[in-house]
Amino acid sequence: MSENIERLLKGVRAGRLSTDRALGVLKDLPYKDLGFARIDNHRALRRGFPEVIFGKGKTPDQIIKIARRIISSDGILLITRTDTKVYSRLKKIYPKIKFDKKSGIIYYRTTPPPIKTGKVLIITAGTADLPVAEEARATLEIMGDPVEILCDVGVAGLHRLLDKMKALGEADVIIVIAGMEGALASVVSGLVSKPVIAVPTSVGYGASFGGVAALLTMMNSCSPGVSVVNIDNGFGAAYFASMINK
Amino acid sequence: MSENIERLLKGVRAGRLSTDRALGVLKDLPYKDLGFARIDNHRALRRGFPEVIFGKGKTPDQIIKIARRIISSDGILLITRTDTKVYSRLKKIYPKIKFDKKSGIIYYRTTPPPIKTGKVLIITAGTADLPVAEEARATLEIMGDPVEILCDVGVAGLHRLLDKMKALGEADVIIVIAGMEGALASVVSGLVSKPVIAVPTSVGYGASFGGVAALLTMMNSCSPGVSVVNIDNGFGAAYFASMINK
Amino acid sequence: MSENIERLLKGVRAGRLSTDRALGVLKDLPYKDLGFARIDNHRALRRGFPEVIFGKGKTPDQIIKIARRIISSDGILLITRTDTKVYSRLKKIYPKIKFDKKSGIIYYRTTPPPIKTGKVLIITAGTADLPVAEEARATLEIMGDPVEILCDVGVAGLHRLLDKMKALGEADVIIVIAGMEGALASVVSGLVSKPVIAVPTSVGYGASFGGVAALLTMMNSCSPGVSVVNIDNGFGAAYFASMINK
Amino acid sequence: MSENIERLLKGVRAGRLSTDRALGVLKDLPYKDLGFARIDNHRALRRGFPEVIFGKGKTPDQIIKIARRIISSDGILLITRTDTKVYSRLKKIYPKIKFDKKSGIIYYRTTPPPIKTGKVLIITAGTADLPVAEEARATLEIMGDPVEILCDVGVAGLHRLLDKMKALGEADVIIVIAGMEGALASVVSGLVSKPVIAVPTSVGYGASFGGVAALLTMMNSCSPGVSVVNIDNGFGAAYFASMINK
Amino acid sequence: MSENIERLLKGVRAGRLSTDRALGVLKDLPYKDLGFARIDNHRALRRGFPEVIFGKGKTPDQIIKIARRIISSDGILLITRTDTKVYSRLKKIYPKIKFDKKSGIIYYRTTPPPIKTGKVLIITAGTADLPVAEEARATLEIMGDPVEILCDVGVAGLHRLLDKMKALGEADVIIVIAGMEGALASVVSGLVSKPVIAVPTSVGYGASFGGVAALLTMMNSCSPGVSVVNIDNGFGAAYFASMINK
Amino acid sequence: MSENIERLLKGVRAGRLSTDRALGVLKDLPYKDLGFARIDNHRALRRGFPEVIFGKGKTPDQIIKIARRIISSDGILLITRTDTKVYSRLKKIYPKIKFDKKSGIIYYRTTPPPIKTGKVLIITAGTADLPVAEEARATLEIMGDPVEILCDVGVAGLHRLLDKMKALGEADVIIVIAGMEGALASVVSGLVSKPVIAVPTSVGYGASFGGVAALLTMMNSCSPGVSVVNIDNGFGAAYFASMINK
Amino acid sequence: MSENIERLLKGVRAGRLSTDRALGVLKDLPYKDLGFARIDNHRALRRGFPEVIFGKGKTPDQIIKIARRIISSDGILLITRTDTKVYSRLKKIYPKIKFDKKSGIIYYRTTPPPIKTGKVLIITAGTADLPVAEEARATLEIMGDPVEILCDVGVAGLHRLLDKMKALGEADVIIVIAGMEGALASVVSGLVSKPVIAVPTSVGYGASFGGVAALLTMMNSCSPGVSVVNIDNGFGAAYFASMINK
Amino acid sequence: MSENIERLLKGVRAGRLSTDRALGVLKDLPYKDLGFARIDNHRALRRGFPEVIFGKGKTPDQIIKIARRIISSDGILLITRTDTKVYSRLKKIYPKIKFDKKSGIIYYRTTPPPIKTGKVLIITAGTADLPVAEEARATLEIMGDPVEILCDVGVAGLHRLLDKMKALGEADVIIVIAGMEGALASVVSGLVSKPVIAVPTSVGYGASFGGVAALLTMMNSCSPGVSVVNIDNGFGAAYFASMINK
Repeated sequence: MSENIERLLKGVRAGRLSTDRALGVLKDLPYKDLGFARIDNHRALRRGFPEVIFGKGKTPDQIIKIARRIISSDGILLITRTDTKVYSRLKKIYPKIKFDKKSGIIYYRTTPPPIKTGKVLIITAGTADLPVAEEARATLEIMGDPVEILCDVGVAGLHRLLDKMKALGEADVIIVIAGMEGALASVVSGLVSKPVIAVPTSVGYGASFGGVAALLTMMNSCSPGVSVVNIDNGFGAAYFASMINK
Repeated sequence: MSENIERLLKGVRAGRLSTDRALGVLKDLPYKDLGFARIDNHRALRRGFPEVIFGKGKTPDQIIKIARRIISSDGILLITRTDTKVYSRLKKIYPKIKFDKKSGIIYYRTTPPPIKTGKVLIITAGTADLPVAEEARATLEIMGDPVEILCDVGVAGLHRLLDKMKALGEADVIIVIAGMEGALASVVSGLVSKPVIAVPTSVGYGASFGGVAALLTMMNSCSPGVSVVNIDNGFGAAYFASMINK
Repeated sequence: MSENIERLLKGVRAGRLSTDRALGVLKDLPYKDLGFARIDNHRALRRGFPEVIFGKGKTPDQIIKIARRIISSDGILLITRTDTKVYSRLKKIYPKIKFDKKSGIIYYRTTPPPIKTGKVLIITAGTADLPVAEEARATLEIMGDPVEILCDVGVAGLHRLLDKMKALGEADVIIVIAGMEGALASVVSGLVSKPVIAVPTSVGYGASFGGVAALLTMMNSCSPGVSVVNIDNGFGAAYFASMINK
Repeated sequence: MSENIERLLKGVRAGRLSTDRALGVLKDLPYKDLGFARIDNHRALRRGFPEVIFGKGKTPDQIIKIARRIISSDGILLITRTDTKVYSRLKKIYPKIKFDKKSGIIYYRTTPPPIKTGKVLIITAGTADLPVAEEARATLEIMGDPVEILCDVGVAGLHRLLDKMKALGEADVIIVIAGMEGALASVVSGLVSKPVIAVPTSVGYGASFGGVAALLTMMNSCSPGVSVVNIDNGFGAAYFASMINK
Repeated sequence: MSENIERLLKGVRAGRLSTDRALGVLKDLPYKDLGFARIDNHRALRRGFPEVIFGKGKTPDQIIKIARRIISSDGILLITRTDTKVYSRLKKIYPKIKFDKKSGIIYYRTTPPPIKTGKVLIITAGTADLPVAEEARATLEIMGDPVEILCDVGVAGLHRLLDKMKALGEADVIIVIAGMEGALASVVSGLVSKPVIAVPTSVGYGASFGGVAALLTMMNSCSPGVSVVNIDNGFGAAYFASMINK
Repeated sequence: MSENIERLLKGVRAGRLSTDRALGVLKDLPYKDLGFARIDNHRALRRGFPEVIFGKGKTPDQIIKIARRIISSDGILLITRTDTKVYSRLKKIYPKIKFDKKSGIIYYRTTPPPIKTGKVLIITAGTADLPVAEEARATLEIMGDPVEILCDVGVAGLHRLLDKMKALGEADVIIVIAGMEGALASVVSGLVSKPVIAVPTSVGYGASFGGVAALLTMMNSCSPGVSVVNIDNGFGAAYFASMINK
Repeated sequence: MSENIERLLKGVRAGRLSTDRALGVLKDLPYKDLGFARIDNHRALRRGFPEVIFGKGKTPDQIIKIARRIISSDGILLITRTDTKVYSRLKKIYPKIKFDKKSGIIYYRTTPPPIKTGKVLIITAGTADLPVAEEARATLEIMGDPVEILCDVGVAGLHRLLDKMKALGEADVIIVIAGMEGALASVVSGLVSKPVIAVPTSVGYGASFGGVAALLTMMNSCSPGVSVVNIDNGFGAAYFASMINK
Repeated sequence: MSENIERLLKGVRAGRLSTDRALGVLKDLPYKDLGFARIDNHRALRRGFPEVIFGKGKTPDQIIKIARRIISSDGILLITRTDTKVYSRLKKIYPKIKFDKKSGIIYYRTTPPPIKTGKVLIITAGTADLPVAEEARATLEIMGDPVEILCDVGVAGLHRLLDKMKALGEADVIIVIAGMEGALASVVSGLVSKPVIAVPTSVGYGASFGGVAALLTMMNSCSPGVSVVNIDNGFGAAYFASMINK
């Protein structure tokens, strides 16, 4: 990340570091080829956050190798859709690493993030949407965004939401997480002048089609100010929220 | 039915009936009986409301022929999804016949309907949903249900709806008509203890898929007390509403 | 529910209850925040029936906490799509609680419901639709609606249905539950002047697409007087039926 | 067709026809290459009926060229999904050619077909399904199958169908044509021991999805003895019916 | 079935049977109510074959009760989509009952069926389609239709099929069973003048969508003379084939 | 809310309020309070930007009426998906009103907007995406956001995009508009640390399914930092962009 | 890349470069380098064939401007999905320009292409597929590939295809164009050892879903050696064919 | 064919052949001839590569039987989508047989293949796409194509790909394997003048719909030179690549 590289460059300038050793550090900057994976080391520099590991479909060995590499170069680790097995093995190496079992997210920082002033509010329609909310929350925590969760305020009992107008008013960015009919995003967006990032979830059955119903609802929101990420993609919503929360 | 069979068996025993003919009778037994019964019952049932003509796909000549027959036997006419051409021809025969151009509904009664005491409230999310609302309203008018329309109270500006809590409270049945994300049905249902009949409309574009998005939203309502009819089916919603509005 | 609150208000009026203690009771009226869930205590007052717990996706601990809270404030509990594990734990607290294993519904009332005079008839196309029918039946039982089930009268043998015209005629509301092609709803609706609430089920294979075929059939019913709820949603159909069964 | 070829072979045997001239006639037997089309002259021999022209997407010139060719070799012409323009031009050449405008079918035979003894019954759910029925009827007429149409006996008024049990009983093959929910095929099949060929039609709106709803209904028929052809494919159903009506 | 009833009627005529006992037997004729199932006893009389049990979604107890009932009244049993558990229990009662494990079909007849002269040919595109073919074969066996299976002649190696032109020519009805792209039905139909009943199977992966690709292929066959049944519905195809194989 | 309830309870205790009226008040409590609150809040919120008219499905008369009211109260007008007819009529009243024919957007401000410092970059994959880009541009113009359009830099010629790294670097928010395969959003997002709002367009044919292919592509972006709005929804993307461009 | 970094580090060490500027350079490093590289490479690549204009959604003015620029720089023009209007205007400028009205393709070369030795065979299932074939043929003509069209050899009359085994054997690449069930691609592929590029067409109706049925068929081909392009994409198939026809 | 017909006619004329037999011969003529021809041709074709076993849906016994037969006659074995069980049994017979567990591919050659000079490059978007890549690699290995894998170069970090321009330039055919949004195929195709065979994978979640999103992306590639095979079909892509890699 830029601080690391800046420090390195200053070392070179000051003569504390040979150009050879600096080159050794920087030569993997664009990416590191592990054979089965090509880690985008440059990403932190380019995008302000290092590569995030999508755990699903990778073997524990692959994940751990990539994880170690990212931590050593960037000091920040985020793995989504992984499991207890990977967590146990990483915990032995990084005892302070965190894990949320329900969402399967692992996250870790060697140094605390700079804390932002803007605030992200996560709203869920129901209790069953909590794993997705937790994935979002962990992502925001590691990115340094102050975050609050408002749980189970679906449109079936609208006053639960209306009662929280103050919290809505204080947020800078709002993430709305809802399954079934996914109507909450439109309703929240209609109440505030904050950008709403909508996350459809696979909560529901029958004609919810694994989240498609909620996705379409959010896509067709009659209230402008809503944009949508993939079904159950708490991480993506949080990442986007952090980007616009300056 | 057993008396018939007993009579038949006795006929066989007495030699009045060949086994072949007896077998032939037994083959049709359950249907023949009920077939005839059905007709009479059905007429009695239909006294309530005659056949409704679905105009689409029928020629004007076909429609007019059926219409004249229904008016002459039942004194009530309802044609959905038809056009000015049919209307003009029918108007020459029945000068008092009514027509709503946008929804394409033609309706007519030779005698005024008995007026019910319960009230049906039609709520639309947007102005573009009005043709469907008008189809519903005309249907309710001819069936004798007092009806009120609350237009353009979509969830993008919730206070427009919350302001009308009194009207919601006074209705006996509520029809919610909404396109785009169709979230209004859930929201209304969460506010009242009245049955909500939801009509998805084809208003929208892109991922509204001609009303499918709204249909799925309504189907997955997290608020119990909502049932759904076909896309743009104002008539069907009104007919159902009239049935439960006693 | 209103009786409870009425009793409380009368106690206040009569001086049997201090305003402070009454306030203590009423201050949670709009909702109770459990952290992971926000129970809509006001729902019973507003909608005539307390919040219903959708079990799927909630942990047993979450369900039991919410359940206790709802029973203590409203005296009525309904949990859909849950399992034996939750039931066993609740049974220890509420020995009279009921459970239907196939549909996964748990239901319980501290006091018997006021019994209605109208009658709800549940008709299933096949034996495999029974779990959905049982979810509907349990819901109606706890809401106080007299209910009868007519099982396995699918359109492949129409006389089985035609033979039951008397039962159809005596019902005030009819719930039709059918998978595969779902044709039964149209057929029943064509025979009676009662509102028909259609429940598509996921019974079938291949091009039944988990209930979509039946859902579309019911949605497109050529017989007016049919409205539709989500696939396998026996609870929703029963709730709607109870609302219109006065 | 085989009679023609048989006559030709007998002519050769009897010496009335030189092998050269016979070869001239037979050399196109497998097919005739028109450049833009490759007419399967062998089809009549192989399948008992010559190639049928699918008019949609072909220019009038192409159709007429192919049509002349088929008439001259087989004496039977069937063009589906064509229009008045093609008809007018062919009528000048073959004054007795027939055309049904609604379905766009053109048909013609130079000699009357051998009439079969079995009977095909076409049943339509509604009046709007008639064009498809007419396509089927014309196809059966030219193939020599006695045919009867029973129109507008949809399941919304079941007695209309039950009243016709006699006609159903007398048929050898039944074609059921229905749009909207398409439930009629299952109902008819449940009443008889005749094969039912189901034709979904695009009659309907909204969630009928241009005939998909009816198609799925028919595909999932709970009553065995139903098989299905493409949406609006009256020709295909009739062709299949004729094949099994011996 | 008609022979049973005929025998009974003759017994009544001859005085061997009292009308009372005969009435007792016949009074259950239209259907037998088991509470959870309503067996259509009349079906054998009306349709020439008794009710077939769809095993999926029924408990073993339910299936066995229904099975016993059907065997005792009709002497023929067919259960589709069931398992070894049900088979083992039924085998104890009816030692000669048959079971095909792969397709899950159980079948049994107390007396041998009258053998037909027409022949049904079952063609499968691949070896993985065999369970569906076996379901069809067992159904045809019990209905008395001579049947032959031609396995693994998919269009990837057309000569395997062309080599079997003789078998195709000798068949009276052809059932084509194919997954993946399902092209075999069109190809076979183009070669013969026999009705082809196409069964799409769920064999395949990715964009085969569980059989939808094959279903659509068959539905859109450019070769007339093909009709289609549900995905993996070997039973339905065989039943239909038997109906037209006289 | 508890003060209100306390006051009410004291009224009951003091006999100033009947228990019946108190119960009635409690029933509406959560909504009544907030309903009123909402209105005021809402006006404040709306000061930012008034209601936007969705032209499709509204009559010219309806649009003009609403437009005049909005202009007179807010001084800002935005109508999407309308046509020349509406524009001509409005131009007579507001001569400075603007119109983009291709996208059908009409926009107008009585006073110039406060100009923001952040910059929005609109990128289109192809020339055919321009109407959607223009809808976005007009929306941003009227909201006071500096905007630049980078046209026709689709992934088929990546260097066209890589050449514009400077423009990408200077933008604060990026809107990516792409039809066909819609891959541009992921690619752009991978290059920058700016939030990317993706707009799928209906540009394409065949398996683009009117924009669905592009929508799914964007939804599944492997590069975090992308959120998506409805197909062809240039307005929605611009509105969202303006919200986060402070 | 490491030389660049080394140079940069040495500059920092030597004080020729501030750490700030060095950091800025490192941020753009991977893209800047390659960006420039790309341009040159790209030009070299493009020598083979210039940009092709997708006419749909572009105004005639836009198309003509782009066309003139491409012709003047590359001497080769290909416009797909355009119309007579554009053609007429271009014809005035380039009198030798060619146009196929049915497919809407315009093509032109200032100098004749180098003719390849390999041969591309285009096979269509029906006459209605010809416009797509013509788009492919024109594309191949302008790219210098010898091309032959074999029209109307669909699987309904397989011998028409089998008779052309010689033509199939002589081709180096085969393009199969088919609508409806699209089975031809599998069949052809099974007969030869040549790569088959399959083009589904929108020819058909009902459940052909505008080419989706054919697309799925081709996608699921049981015969390896088939790859697929978009529906009606004759150009894409030809372009791909030309690439592999060396 | 005309010689055959001539011979036949002469036989008829000479009385050597009855007209009946001649008619019978003519009926089979186009197929009989070609049927036999086919077999020989086919063997010749197959010399290139024998039948490949699709393991899914076949029993181990079936697979092993087929495998032994193919090895004994052709010396080359390829089984896709099979498992360790089959592998263990085959290993006992053919100790040098190879197996890749993740993709489930078994492959074996008794003699080494002739090695080609052209090179196939396999590119994967992510690490999770490796099993599909391995299926492709094994297929190419056994077909004798030199192959290289470039792993994890998805569009989220484009420089990883741009850095490998040399490898791209050296390849003769490129296989791009990508899940999620599948954008990599278009991007790669835009960079090179090599044919790109795109393989969508089921890697992803939510709206990736098991690979459908990637499939549609690839199908709609705005960059010509891309053709597509089925989801996860590494084998099919490799087979096609080998065909065009001469």
